[in-house]
Amino acid sequence: MTEWDQERRARAVLTCICEPGHLKLARLVASHGAVATVDALRRNGDESAWARRAKMTDEDVLVQRAGQAQLRFVIPGDTEWPVQLDDLAHRAEIQGLGGLPVGLWAAGPLSVAEFAPRSVAVVGARAATRYGEAVTSDLVGGLISDGYTVVSGGAYGIDAAAHRAALASGGRTVGVYAGGLDEAYPRGNLRLFEELKAEHLVVSEVAPGVRVSRSAFLARNRLIAALTIGTVVVEAAARSGARNTASWANELGRAVMAVPGPVFSGMSTGCHRLIRDGQATLVADVDDIRAQLAPLGVGPLLAERGPDRLLDDVEPELLAVREAMPARGGISTSDLAVKCGHPVPRILGALAELEVLGLVGQDQTGAWRLKRPTSAVV
Amino acid sequence: MTEWDQERRARAVLTCICEPGHLKLARLVASHGAVATVDALRRNGDESAWARRAKMTDEDVLVQRAGQAQLRFVIPGDTEWPVQLDDLAHRAEIQGLGGLPVGLWAAGPLSVAEFAPRSVAVVGARAATRYGEAVTSDLVGGLISDGYTVVSGGAYGIDAAAHRAALASGGRTVGVYAGGLDEAYPRGNLRLFEELKAEHLVVSEVAPGVRVSRSAFLARNRLIAALTIGTVVVEAAARSGARNTASWANELGRAVMAVPGPVFSGMSTGCHRLIRDGQATLVADVDDIRAQLAPLGVGPLLAERGPDRLLDDVEPELLAVREAMPARGGISTSDLAVKCGHPVPRILGALAELEVLGLVGQDQTGAWRLKRPTSAVV
Repeated sequence: MTEWDQERRARAVLTCICEPGHLKLARLVASHGAVATVDALRRNGDESAWARRAKMTDEDVLVQRAGQAQLRFVIPGDTEWPVQLDDLAHRAEIQGLGGLPVGLWAAGPLSVAEFAPRSVAVVGARAATRYGEAVTSDLVGGLISDGYTVVSGGAYGIDAAAHRAALASGGRTVGVYAGGLDEAYPRGNLRLFEELKAEHLVVSEVAPGVRVSRSAFLARNRLIAALTIGTVVVEAAARSGARNTASWANELGRAVMAVPGPVFSGMSTGCHRLIRDGQATLVADVDDIRAQLAPLGVGPLLAERGPDRLLDDVEPELLAVREAMPARGGISTSDLAVKCGHPVPRILGALAELEVLGLVGQDQTGAWRLKRPTSAVV
Repeated sequence: MTEWDQERRARAVLTCICEPGHLKLARLVASHGAVATVDALRRNGDESAWARRAKMTDEDVLVQRAGQAQLRFVIPGDTEWPVQLDDLAHRAEIQGLGGLPVGLWAAGPLSVAEFAPRSVAVVGARAATRYGEAVTSDLVGGLISDGYTVVSGGAYGIDAAAHRAALASGGRTVGVYAGGLDEAYPRGNLRLFEELKAEHLVVSEVAPGVRVSRSAFLARNRLIAALTIGTVVVEAAARSGARNTASWANELGRAVMAVPGPVFSGMSTGCHRLIRDGQATLVADVDDIRAQLAPLGVGPLLAERGPDRLLDDVEPELLAVREAMPARGGISTSDLAVKCGHPVPRILGALAELEVLGLVGQDQTGAWRLKRPTSAVV
């Protein structure tokens, strides 16, 4: 059960009244805090759209509505808040959108903080071809057997094919939505939405009751990129939302991959341009994806290793990441990436392995801290 | 008619007795000259394979045989010798092969020196799919209408499809063969070979009568790369001769391009790996190829420009290439590329345009020299 203290209530109101990914919103919250921001909007005299909506919004109704829809609301500082999302606080905007979300609405048994460091976005065209759906099925099957969680939107085409392939492989899959989680969008994917919500996880940046808009889709794409360590675009037309997700993944230093296809297929044009222009690496099979996600040799063998491994056995690259961490206090993933000179996905992979080895851990704020190895030999 | 002086006879003998692309051959000829090399091989005491063959080879028979097959023999210094081939003299080897050919056997109405600065290699798998053949047809049609000459080998599959598409488009196409030009290899492409020989051009580094070998194919691939300004690989298996041609094109600083295809097609695997590993740029249509071949804006509009254009109208990049040329004397393409810091294809494109503008020309040795513009204004 979510504890609805003042801070959480204020943030929930903001997800109800402000367009997601609005840079002004992120700046107000960063400078003044959520409570002061809502108070200011409710003060008489402000006649902006946000102010009008703030005055109209009843927090108790919102909390009740969330409860009915079985939603929880995750905010920075929560155990479930994924530290890698903080990369959004420091990065550039795309098309006027950006910034840290004020909170994440979520429903389902999976934890956001837990899946995110080992997850891959599989996205693509709504008007996917049978070829695209077949490739999606193959790649997702491989990713699931490597232990990755699949992340996608809720659309027809590649998004739905990715979720269905993950479910068929017995894996974990997360839907990130542009609208409120009280109803499915599009309606034709209702059963899929309900299955993800009941068995896996659905996530949104906006409050229940908020409807989708074009800019909400673009803001949502930044969440898909930020919540994963890499994005695979399976099919995309020349103009495609999937290319926007790829742009976000590039902005955030994530691995960006695209699948080639027949040059006569308009649904592969966007992928080919991403590859041609150096915005994505070509991946033709799951081995290619593995190579992009685990350049430090972090892979499916992870689970077989115990927490008592000695530093002597740890790969030199992992040790280098560990040595870049401060002796006292925490460090963010992005700061560590800068310090090590590696891209964020590589650092996240290394941190995931170091965590399994019992050598690092995340504190309450999501920062990474050194742990002493449990073996007495070190 | 070829003038069979002593130098040309000696070089012809060498193409008869030495494996093509043998680095030792290129070094001997560069250090001692062809005449002294043949003399040394014929001297008693040398029992090497080359020496035995040298003693057995009757130059008059060779010249007669070439005449019967209507072959000419082009050597460095000839007007028909393509200056860009000299790049092979200064570049690294691949799999123990390399070096400048001692001469080129040729038959057909096209001139080697004339087609090479504006030609594109289109190569690929023998076991091409219908997809690969369809893509070849499309791309070649576009290249021909841009005025490029197509270059390929003589094999089944993509090679034959490239030649046939060029012929169907009314364009020019050149076959570069691994064996002697007195007979077609493979025999199944006899009619294509005869058509190229009669109407276009066939080229080989080895004398008539010399049979193909595996290393001859690899040596031939370096000629295809060197004789063109860019190579397009349409389909290639994971292990493929076309990938070898792409490696040569990279070695020589040419544009290297590969066409994507369905990830389930083994005939696209080689292309995908070239792209994935950064050895080739993805090209999905002829516009993509144009962008790779003409980064200085040299394109199909060339023919519309007159030789009297003023320097004021010349693009800054072209002027920069012109300004890098010595006031007196000539300069090779590769030296100019180094001086300008641009890849060779880009320099060749610029030189082609400067030549049309009447601002540069090639001398007898193939070196590039400045010309005064014909307009009095400059």
